[in-house]
Amino acid sequence: MQLEATELNMLRPLLRNVAKQSVATAARPVASRGFATSASAPAPTPAFNWEDPLNARNLLTEEEISISETAEAYCQERILPRVLQAYRDENYDRQILEEMGELGLLGATIQGYDCAGVSSVASGLITKAVERVDSGYRSAMSVQSALVMGGIEEFGTQEQKDKFLPKMAKGKLLGAFGLTEPNHGSDPGSMEAIAKPHPTKKGYLSLSGSKTWITNSPIADVLLVWAKYQETGKIRGFLVERSECPPGTLETPAIKDKNGLRASLTGMIHLDECPIPEANMFPDVEGLTGPFTCLNGARYGIAWGVMGALEDCIARSRTYALERKQFKGNPIAKYQLVQKKLADATTDATYGTLAALQVGRLKDQGKATPEMISMIKRQNCDRALSNARTLQEVFGGNAVSDEYGIGRHVANLFVTQTYEGQSDIHSLILGRAITGLQAFV
Amino acid sequence: MQLEATELNMLRPLLRNVAKQSVATAARPVASRGFATSASAPAPTPAFNWEDPLNARNLLTEEEISISETAEAYCQERILPRVLQAYRDENYDRQILEEMGELGLLGATIQGYDCAGVSSVASGLITKAVERVDSGYRSAMSVQSALVMGGIEEFGTQEQKDKFLPKMAKGKLLGAFGLTEPNHGSDPGSMEAIAKPHPTKKGYLSLSGSKTWITNSPIADVLLVWAKYQETGKIRGFLVERSECPPGTLETPAIKDKNGLRASLTGMIHLDECPIPEANMFPDVEGLTGPFTCLNGARYGIAWGVMGALEDCIARSRTYALERKQFKGNPIAKYQLVQKKLADATTDATYGTLAALQVGRLKDQGKATPEMISMIKRQNCDRALSNARTLQEVFGGNAVSDEYGIGRHVANLFVTQTYEGQSDIHSLILGRAITGLQAFV
Amino acid sequence: MQLEATELNMLRPLLRNVAKQSVATAARPVASRGFATSASAPAPTPAFNWEDPLNARNLLTEEEISISETAEAYCQERILPRVLQAYRDENYDRQILEEMGELGLLGATIQGYDCAGVSSVASGLITKAVERVDSGYRSAMSVQSALVMGGIEEFGTQEQKDKFLPKMAKGKLLGAFGLTEPNHGSDPGSMEAIAKPHPTKKGYLSLSGSKTWITNSPIADVLLVWAKYQETGKIRGFLVERSECPPGTLETPAIKDKNGLRASLTGMIHLDECPIPEANMFPDVEGLTGPFTCLNGARYGIAWGVMGALEDCIARSRTYALERKQFKGNPIAKYQLVQKKLADATTDATYGTLAALQVGRLKDQGKATPEMISMIKRQNCDRALSNARTLQEVFGGNAVSDEYGIGRHVANLFVTQTYEGQSDIHSLILGRAITGLQAFV
Amino acid sequence: MQLEATELNMLRPLLRNVAKQSVATAARPVASRGFATSASAPAPTPAFNWEDPLNARNLLTEEEISISETAEAYCQERILPRVLQAYRDENYDRQILEEMGELGLLGATIQGYDCAGVSSVASGLITKAVERVDSGYRSAMSVQSALVMGGIEEFGTQEQKDKFLPKMAKGKLLGAFGLTEPNHGSDPGSMEAIAKPHPTKKGYLSLSGSKTWITNSPIADVLLVWAKYQETGKIRGFLVERSECPPGTLETPAIKDKNGLRASLTGMIHLDECPIPEANMFPDVEGLTGPFTCLNGARYGIAWGVMGALEDCIARSRTYALERKQFKGNPIAKYQLVQKKLADATTDATYGTLAALQVGRLKDQGKATPEMISMIKRQNCDRALSNARTLQEVFGGNAVSDEYGIGRHVANLFVTQTYEGQSDIHSLILGRAITGLQAFV
Repeated sequence: MQLEATELNMLRPLLRNVAKQSVATAARPVASRGFATSASAPAPTPAFNWEDPLNARNLLTEEEISISETAEAYCQERILPRVLQAYRDENYDRQILEEMGELGLLGATIQGYDCAGVSSVASGLITKAVERVDSGYRSAMSVQSALVMGGIEEFGTQEQKDKFLPKMAKGKLLGAFGLTEPNHGSDPGSMEAIAKPHPTKKGYLSLSGSKTWITNSPIADVLLVWAKYQETGKIRGFLVERSECPPGTLETPAIKDKNGLRASLTGMIHLDECPIPEANMFPDVEGLTGPFTCLNGARYGIAWGVMGALEDCIARSRTYALERKQFKGNPIAKYQLVQKKLADATTDATYGTLAALQVGRLKDQGKATPEMISMIKRQNCDRALSNARTLQEVFGGNAVSDEYGIGRHVANLFVTQTYEGQSDIHSLILGRAITGLQAFV
Repeated sequence: MQLEATELNMLRPLLRNVAKQSVATAARPVASRGFATSASAPAPTPAFNWEDPLNARNLLTEEEISISETAEAYCQERILPRVLQAYRDENYDRQILEEMGELGLLGATIQGYDCAGVSSVASGLITKAVERVDSGYRSAMSVQSALVMGGIEEFGTQEQKDKFLPKMAKGKLLGAFGLTEPNHGSDPGSMEAIAKPHPTKKGYLSLSGSKTWITNSPIADVLLVWAKYQETGKIRGFLVERSECPPGTLETPAIKDKNGLRASLTGMIHLDECPIPEANMFPDVEGLTGPFTCLNGARYGIAWGVMGALEDCIARSRTYALERKQFKGNPIAKYQLVQKKLADATTDATYGTLAALQVGRLKDQGKATPEMISMIKRQNCDRALSNARTLQEVFGGNAVSDEYGIGRHVANLFVTQTYEGQSDIHSLILGRAITGLQAFV
Repeated sequence: MQLEATELNMLRPLLRNVAKQSVATAARPVASRGFATSASAPAPTPAFNWEDPLNARNLLTEEEISISETAEAYCQERILPRVLQAYRDENYDRQILEEMGELGLLGATIQGYDCAGVSSVASGLITKAVERVDSGYRSAMSVQSALVMGGIEEFGTQEQKDKFLPKMAKGKLLGAFGLTEPNHGSDPGSMEAIAKPHPTKKGYLSLSGSKTWITNSPIADVLLVWAKYQETGKIRGFLVERSECPPGTLETPAIKDKNGLRASLTGMIHLDECPIPEANMFPDVEGLTGPFTCLNGARYGIAWGVMGALEDCIARSRTYALERKQFKGNPIAKYQLVQKKLADATTDATYGTLAALQVGRLKDQGKATPEMISMIKRQNCDRALSNARTLQEVFGGNAVSDEYGIGRHVANLFVTQTYEGQSDIHSLILGRAITGLQAFV
Repeated sequence: MQLEATELNMLRPLLRNVAKQSVATAARPVASRGFATSASAPAPTPAFNWEDPLNARNLLTEEEISISETAEAYCQERILPRVLQAYRDENYDRQILEEMGELGLLGATIQGYDCAGVSSVASGLITKAVERVDSGYRSAMSVQSALVMGGIEEFGTQEQKDKFLPKMAKGKLLGAFGLTEPNHGSDPGSMEAIAKPHPTKKGYLSLSGSKTWITNSPIADVLLVWAKYQETGKIRGFLVERSECPPGTLETPAIKDKNGLRASLTGMIHLDECPIPEANMFPDVEGLTGPFTCLNGARYGIAWGVMGALEDCIARSRTYALERKQFKGNPIAKYQLVQKKLADATTDATYGTLAALQVGRLKDQGKATPEMISMIKRQNCDRALSNARTLQEVFGGNAVSDEYGIGRHVANLFVTQTYEGQSDIHSLILGRAITGLQAFV
């Protein structure tokens, strides 16, 4: 299924327009008026909104609210209807990324290059809207936006930026990010992929190695692959263009029969003496700084995204609990054990959103640290997963049917907890930051 | 032990001064400059601070930072040294309230009446500073500030305000709040205390009934007692002045041998046909609106306060873990199981602080709802308690010694979880708000 | 894939032989010798066995050990190789039930009718062996053995027993159990299925109604359906033989795209004025006693079975942790956070096994109560699920591959927690037994 | 308060009598009759008993039941009335140990030396009865029975046994066990206490060092102290008799103001060149084998004891929940959230009891391993503590009063989790046993 051009047009203008506005007017928090203690005329009686219990919206700018609404509308109307079948079939429709590109959702924080240039909070809201539908769709987008476009923008040459970013922003070129190797998950520093001088092609390197669990890899056009640069023994980043690879030097087999994230594609990357122009190497960044910077961006997005998935679980289980009647015709929403599950989940959803929002603000002020991102990535994934599992109990035996959607979120959220830093690894990153002592080994 | 006048003078000016400033200049968030996406010149490299991992300080105004620092300095220097012995002896030094009054910490959000008139966030920061030392000291202050002064300010006549608030602000008059009865804890609407027309004294009511678990009651000068007004059958508030009660009409026996909050006084209130001038009744408020409004204020403070207690537990266990060496001379802070406890606790402390701060901002904008306060009271108490208990394990067998302080916090935090709405009750309040169905019975 | 006759013959003799033995010799616990305090000559030094940490085997008779070994051998050698593909395809090979029948694993506690007549503990060990491979295979067997054969043996007429039990014992007739209706899950007393006098066929009833989430229904030959008997308004049991149902009166559509238990078949049962001979109605049992007695038997089996699934998760994650190396070549099994997960899981597995074993002994002594079975069903499902999820974390990103098997167990175990009494329902059954007060409504 | 001689006489005969019986008749499980599948005539309908939900009693011999009843009667009638005040005052009445001695409760598994010679399960039942009242009383008894008498019986010379055991069995001599040092808790192998040849006294050693957190130390008559034997550098055990120590060579100051276990005495042991006859050294055992063997015995007892404390918490909170009425006069026992707490706790209590019982049987068969004891010590302490804390919530604000007893159990149980191997240490012991890899450093 594909969006009609006219439908997209209805959604499209908004994001790019507001983005432009935001350059013009210094973004002012909608709520800033009221930060002083003397609120002039409080609204009649504020009402509690279970979908935003602590009124995080109050912290958003008007621009951010607009962006969020556009993204939510697109996701609910356009991609939600596709996900059930896609998940069953382990199928990803790359059209989705083009649609996102049309709306300006890709690489949205980047200034220029046809990107929207919105705030980090706005990009978090986009991420949340997508993951409210499915973590797999969000993963595909995160790889494109945070890992690959973010990496190019941060570390690429001007030529690399000019060449790749505008097409990626439109979803015309699809990216993948190759860091993890089969034997090196939590410890990428031990990677074995290597870039040697090419034996025959002048100005080229020869790239060899295997990467695994690579989102988008089977269909990606541009693969940002990290490998040890033989000359220095240090890790460097390489932009591998599929269309330029001679046959047999690049294979990207899909990994099938996954337990989760089945609506996104995952695969391996096998490079066998693949010739890469030196111009496709990132110019300066060496060691793990490069990939970790990219991962930070992606992790930041995950921390937002999983809150969307959790909110969807809350909405679905709340609806079910109100409609499902047991024991003398009472809706099960009336039972204490059910209400507690809902209360716990909404609390964690709103706390997690506030924390992600805070880190987003700090990011834009240059005050965010990687440990902050470890904290919100770990906590939000853990709490989203834990609450989603508990909410799944509300469905009783019916939870086994995939049509209720919550089982899909549960399966997806488990994966989000394990990738881009399994929670235990982030615990130890935090532990090191707190104590000054490393406990990895 | 009592503060020397000169010492107090060193601390004192700050709070009232900043408060005055805050009237003059519209309070502007320190961080507001940076809310836009184009942060002009980011600081070199931001550092992770385990004491404020998500940089909540960035959301404070300069005034709020000043107030927080004053309160923290007072609490650490003046009341921390007294708490160990006070807790052992179940003793509360009412001098402390006078000192707090001197510094302007009491009823701090109230405008006028010699109160500081600070923001709700500032008052939260004061609360946190006090509870970092001990939840009992915070309880005594909460009763004075939120429950009694807050009640008078919200519901009292002008005469009542003029008569009581200034002296209470200085800590010269000590307040207590009588709502809970021996047989009516979570369900105060069933209270039995009653105010009848006084049989002999013209213009007086005759107040009878018993209240229990009343903080400060044994030494309180002004007791705000809620009772059913016989004429209407509705709950009304009465200001009972101990000095005016004829012998035998008011008894306030202490409850001793408590499991927690031993540094604050707890007692009962027995009223036996106690004559109360009609002028001491709150003029308009009827039903549970009155006490629940007061409780909301107190619960808001608890949500802040317990984060202070938790932060103290983190600091104490971190220090212990760094100093304690086991197995080949390694500090136990190097062990994964210890680091995870610290990572979990710091995460919950900072998430809880951000949530309380958000509600504080909403309060001042007239956008806070009671359910929001139920949410942060419940969650912050639960997480503070749970993490404090886990951190206590770091101390191994040494935890049994009261000199490490953490056992005291654990015992206190359990009480905070049970009073002013036990967590299960707040779960059901939230459940009702989420589902529209009540599950209390 | 099907067992060769010769292969089955190698496994087959054991179970029926030992079963016969057990009639001859009063079953004596292997360990009974040592129950006295004066153990004559203790073995050299006992070793800790992580697969049976508290030596539950010591409580088994020699017969039970033999049966367990036979069942484990069959399951590991014959059904384990089929499960991965079956789960992917949502396919159940009914050949499996025939093989189980050949080995005497079906209806194993029943005396006579070609059943093995073993102890309840032995039947628990069989269940555990099957669920060590997959909860779906165990479900298919539980329905056959506990729900249908158990129901017929307990409540059927002699003719019903003679007609159905021997063929079911051999796996020649496949059973299904129809209790749950689309709108009545936890509260079957409100069922709508009804049996009226048949309008035309003498000696027949006319059965109408819908049942859902019925294991085996799409391929079952005999469906034990519970429905209200119009004459009395009370629930009665009916044996519906598919081969006898006129076209259009019985439909059993499969439910596909399940989140778990995909290696077993699940479906609905639609009965539309289906004629049932009166001789196929259970003679005496009325109300919920009938189905609840059957469910008790099945729940008892689940309590054993899930411990098998958990043990498999432990074994798989232990192996993975020993083989997976990260950070300086250390196997991740060396990390504290990993060891804790394994320690927790083995503890719960062995505690749960001891509890199930105890209830098994009590069952055979006529001392078991339904609440006991609620307790072990709830606790063992909950703990199996919770630990399986935690162990899944050990696999990091690799957990998403279905080849590690643990994701399948996690998905299955969630379903075991929700069927035959969701855990919350069992909590309330226990709560009622403890307090004497019911809290369902 | 002291037992009257006549009262003790009423209780006393039982234990020693049954013990004698048990030598005559080979102890046969009461339940062994029914282990076969063909239970002859099952009792009418078995009833669920919330105090023993899985009928662990069914596994006991008649002797064990008698012993348990004697111990329970003594504890409930004689020591329960003293504990509230003792806990408040941090006071231990050494008379209690004499009473226990009179009843044969001390060193009860030891054969001869005036000890009862009962099974390990019987001794577990005694322990449970005592800890049902208070963990402090159980601690005092554990030190006497398991650590000191157990150590002497296992490792002492015949002379040491003859000299100490009979008087200790009667409670006439009180023991203490000195292993832990101020800087060496979880890692006793690094101890600093040392035994050198005595410079002046022939046949004497000179013992120096400090021990801390020593139960009973302030009033103990015989202190089993572990120290490095200078001659070999290996750890050896020394029996220090207070009455023989010259002034200034032995100090045992009490540690006051404890957070828990306040009904037992805790102190330090300071030895300053204390002369010890060589005959008071254990003859053969070297290294940590000695103390760890003693600790195993004590830990086994703790695993039983904490189940008694938990059962008392269940009984107290159940009673409270049935009597406490809130919201329209409903007892709070009727609320789902309360029932769940009770269901969880009773489940863990009975699971833990079954596991401890299993290890007891294995102990007497020579089949128990230290890891088994680590498992039940860890799990039972953890679950007892966790459930006790949750049950404490049932009391709402009233929990702060010490008269409900549950706060005392909570505080005590935390200490049981940290002593004799903090739970994390036992996790790593188990982890090592499961994986073959140690993760302590």
